[in-house]
Amino acid sequence: MEKVKRNERVSAIVEMLSDNPNKIFTLSYFSDLFGSAKSTISEDVAIAQDSIEKYSLGKIETVPGAAGGVKYIPYKKNDCKKFVEEICSTLRDGDRILPGGFLYMLDVLSHPATVSKMGEMLAMEFYKANPDFVMTIETKGIPVALMAAKSLNIPLLIARRDAKISDGSAVSINYVTGTTGRIQTMSLPKRAVSNGQRALIIDDFMKGGGSAKGLADMMKEFAISVVGVGVVMATKHPEVKRVKEYKSLMELVNVDEINRAVDVRPSEWV
Amino acid sequence: MEKVKRNERVSAIVEMLSDNPNKIFTLSYFSDLFGSAKSTISEDVAIAQDSIEKYSLGKIETVPGAAGGVKYIPYKKNDCKKFVEEICSTLRDGDRILPGGFLYMLDVLSHPATVSKMGEMLAMEFYKANPDFVMTIETKGIPVALMAAKSLNIPLLIARRDAKISDGSAVSINYVTGTTGRIQTMSLPKRAVSNGQRALIIDDFMKGGGSAKGLADMMKEFAISVVGVGVVMATKHPEVKRVKEYKSLMELVNVDEINRAVDVRPSEWV
Repeated sequence: MEKVKRNERVSAIVEMLSDNPNKIFTLSYFSDLFGSAKSTISEDVAIAQDSIEKYSLGKIETVPGAAGGVKYIPYKKNDCKKFVEEICSTLRDGDRILPGGFLYMLDVLSHPATVSKMGEMLAMEFYKANPDFVMTIETKGIPVALMAAKSLNIPLLIARRDAKISDGSAVSINYVTGTTGRIQTMSLPKRAVSNGQRALIIDDFMKGGGSAKGLADMMKEFAISVVGVGVVMATKHPEVKRVKEYKSLMELVNVDEINRAVDVRPSEWV
Repeated sequence: MEKVKRNERVSAIVEMLSDNPNKIFTLSYFSDLFGSAKSTISEDVAIAQDSIEKYSLGKIETVPGAAGGVKYIPYKKNDCKKFVEEICSTLRDGDRILPGGFLYMLDVLSHPATVSKMGEMLAMEFYKANPDFVMTIETKGIPVALMAAKSLNIPLLIARRDAKISDGSAVSINYVTGTTGRIQTMSLPKRAVSNGQRALIIDDFMKGGGSAKGLADMMKEFAISVVGVGVVMATKHPEVKRVKEYKSLMELVNVDEINRAVDVRPSEWV
């Protein structure tokens, strides 16, 4: 019987940890749930830890101290490079080229399994910078940004193109899009953030870096520091973006409208 | 040694299943990964199944047939009622009342842990209707809709207020908002869907039901059937909505601007 019970406990512990990345569970919580001694739970957790790391499914970290316990981090999971290479290969289809040299990639940004892994990968690059929230601008980057926020167990804030009455008072700023040089507006509800917080900016696409720069400027209005910028895809040109540092999963080198060819590659760090 | 190995396999199986709800994993896949016989893997899965059900963490289903295997369904997880009651209690704060009688609930719709559970609950109500994709309209409902889509392992499609050039050709329709009676536009890229598919509509808020009706009408343009409508919150008034059937997690009975009181309750089915 003891053997079965251990298996049962370990299964339940893994499910709960995996379902709630970066959330600390105390040993007492598990101890109460299973009616087992803390020493027994410690052994259960050690088994879960070994297994998760052995099969590159992430990491179970021990957090010391009074508020301590264990938490699951979807860190350095397997097949990341292969995963990004597969997306690139999907995107290299000439039929995706739209008038104006745009690349149709809505399907890639629509599937939860895909955005989940992309969000996780971007989040893990900035995990140690300890952001308080993820920030994005509507609309297409929201799924990836939400999944990044889920990996880090922090809120997602969405800057809107227009302030909405149901969000209360908002701060609006104007920014210049990197692509077209047009002036646009973005706004964020005042009560969504507090001075001194740390933001991680996540978006789907970067060409000139105007949106990311706009988000960073907006954070300044709230006295919030930006700990990083992560995007799904960045264009190779222009090489100088309006934000200095960013991580992208893929680099879009060229879209050849005449020959219907797309040159897109995984970024080097992936 | 065998004992440790079983624990390890069960942990890894639970992590992979839980991380990919509604995705079928074949026994051969696990068998290759662990270098174990299929009969051994069957026993591992049985242990995982028992444990997940025992602690109300969902369900591991066996899918028979050639393309069969096992999959995890976040079905009837524990504490759903308590969870919704807690959100209601958070929302009953008079300071949330905005000018015009609107209720500030962006924080509740911003945290991945919260939207994840809300999306899961709504998705599970329509799991058996077998939708091909989740449909929502930008912006605030996107996080919950994405999490519902994740639980079902199907894409999320987002109707936009304006068609974007980077989405290719789109179908646009006009619809009447239930709240103000104003005419608005929504559009969806043509290549995002196919005739004959089945859509599940998920949104954050329903008053008159105009947005949901607009989404349903748009689905008609694509010859797509709507298998259900789920929202986080619906107002008690008007009692007759523009869509006949829907499931909401919470019912907003009244917002009293004078006395700064919010009457919001979990829906009866929760």
